[in-house]
Amino acid sequence: MGSTLETVSEVRSHDGVQGVYSHASNETGTQMTFAVFVPDHAPGEKLPVLWYLSGLTCTHANVMEKGEYGAACAQYGIVFVTPDTSPRGDDVPDAPDEYDFGKGAGFYVDATEQPWAEHFRMRSYIETELPGLVAASFPVDLQRQSITGHSMGGHGALTIGLRNPGRFRSISAFSPIVAPSQVPWGEKAFGRYLGPDRSRWRDYDAVSLIEDGARHDTILIDQGTSDNFLKEQLQTHSLEKAFADAGINGMVRMQDGYDHSYFFISTFMPQHITWHARELKTD
Amino acid sequence: MGSTLETVSEVRSHDGVQGVYSHASNETGTQMTFAVFVPDHAPGEKLPVLWYLSGLTCTHANVMEKGEYGAACAQYGIVFVTPDTSPRGDDVPDAPDEYDFGKGAGFYVDATEQPWAEHFRMRSYIETELPGLVAASFPVDLQRQSITGHSMGGHGALTIGLRNPGRFRSISAFSPIVAPSQVPWGEKAFGRYLGPDRSRWRDYDAVSLIEDGARHDTILIDQGTSDNFLKEQLQTHSLEKAFADAGINGMVRMQDGYDHSYFFISTFMPQHITWHARELKTD
Repeated sequence: MGSTLETVSEVRSHDGVQGVYSHASNETGTQMTFAVFVPDHAPGEKLPVLWYLSGLTCTHANVMEKGEYGAACAQYGIVFVTPDTSPRGDDVPDAPDEYDFGKGAGFYVDATEQPWAEHFRMRSYIETELPGLVAASFPVDLQRQSITGHSMGGHGALTIGLRNPGRFRSISAFSPIVAPSQVPWGEKAFGRYLGPDRSRWRDYDAVSLIEDGARHDTILIDQGTSDNFLKEQLQTHSLEKAFADAGINGMVRMQDGYDHSYFFISTFMPQHITWHARELKTD
Repeated sequence: MGSTLETVSEVRSHDGVQGVYSHASNETGTQMTFAVFVPDHAPGEKLPVLWYLSGLTCTHANVMEKGEYGAACAQYGIVFVTPDTSPRGDDVPDAPDEYDFGKGAGFYVDATEQPWAEHFRMRSYIETELPGLVAASFPVDLQRQSITGHSMGGHGALTIGLRNPGRFRSISAFSPIVAPSQVPWGEKAFGRYLGPDRSRWRDYDAVSLIEDGARHDTILIDQGTSDNFLKEQLQTHSLEKAFADAGINGMVRMQDGYDHSYFFISTFMPQHITWHARELKTD
């Protein structure tokens, strides 16, 4: 790896250890922070991993404090990894007045445009660099991985999962952005990170990836019906249509009265972990 | 009551509604904010109540975001009420450089000393005013109440519970301050809120209350062994000794490796709710 893992904090939680770590990332060229929950386990045992990608404005800390994943991960023996959502630091370009672009809004892409291309490499960071570091530093079995996320992170989970179908046994998402190329959040971010050629956006758009032939058998989506972003930014129906057109048997559950917040995520997090656990415990 | 309840927010969470409310308090002379979780229930049904008192520096929001009580409260049909820890506002005197005194540190006393006496009336607010407001505004059955809390709020739960033994079916606490009269946090707060006459502190000290004859049958304490405040401020052993001397069958569980944080609280919160539920569901 080349990068040394620094322990920011380790706290006993839910019959395991909730840690926060940082390292110098080769991909982003910055110090990156992430959190890992490791349930108690037998010496030498390697555990399956569930990746959780966070939404706009979040760091690793939001889900760590509010996500209510500890009890279920301890019950099933699953390591829960929660990366940051963008590079950070004074050297990183930003759009400080925009919550939906720049720091906290990496959109899980490798930017090609200036001034973003040098540091905003969240696709390669999440797909390649961080898994290597996690495998080298924690008791995980990368043969048993699943991925989930919220909103922008649901977009990340779906696109990374669809691009790497052999890697993740299951993909889930809470209120994901399913077709970023067609909604304001995505058009803004992709236009500036990736440039105006929309053909280069398709690799970062779950609906486009399915249209272009990507497939996965085991997908679960939860979406609140009272989510203020549903109509304009999330457009869950686009994913349902893509599933139907492609013959993908994905499960999309509309949850009555729930909004976009961590009250929604934490309500359904244990069900998602139980659902992933069925796949992850299969050898 | 005289005071009108204002709804700050209501969000669907864990098969119920997580609300935040505010009202003009007669006791504190300020606008007070508190949170209430109400699980789904049959029309007209009245539910038992579990009060949660928070620790130093906290508002209603810390446990609401990090406490992991929703699923268990929904399972058992328990309303969960979380008050603030002090009066707030520009008119309220404060010690802004001290995290353990003034705003965020009401210690659940009625202050008698100046300049605190006018607004710092958290005993009467929690014991009298807020229960009346909650009973008038939410579907609760005040014949079935229990109380819990963390740290300073564990002190609050124990002292309010011990002073009102007929009111609460069960009392629990996470890492409580059990003998504030004997530790720096309490000596500082009581000296300034209540004055130097230590005989007037006894009504606000769980160990002193038990020495003076207060009794309760159903008490559960969880305390982490890696809590940085255990030795100097919490002194759980003083409560264990008071229980033994008084023949109180309280349960004190030392939890190996856990600290003072919400990672500890959220780990054991469902067990506390399950334990209270056994008492609360008995008519």
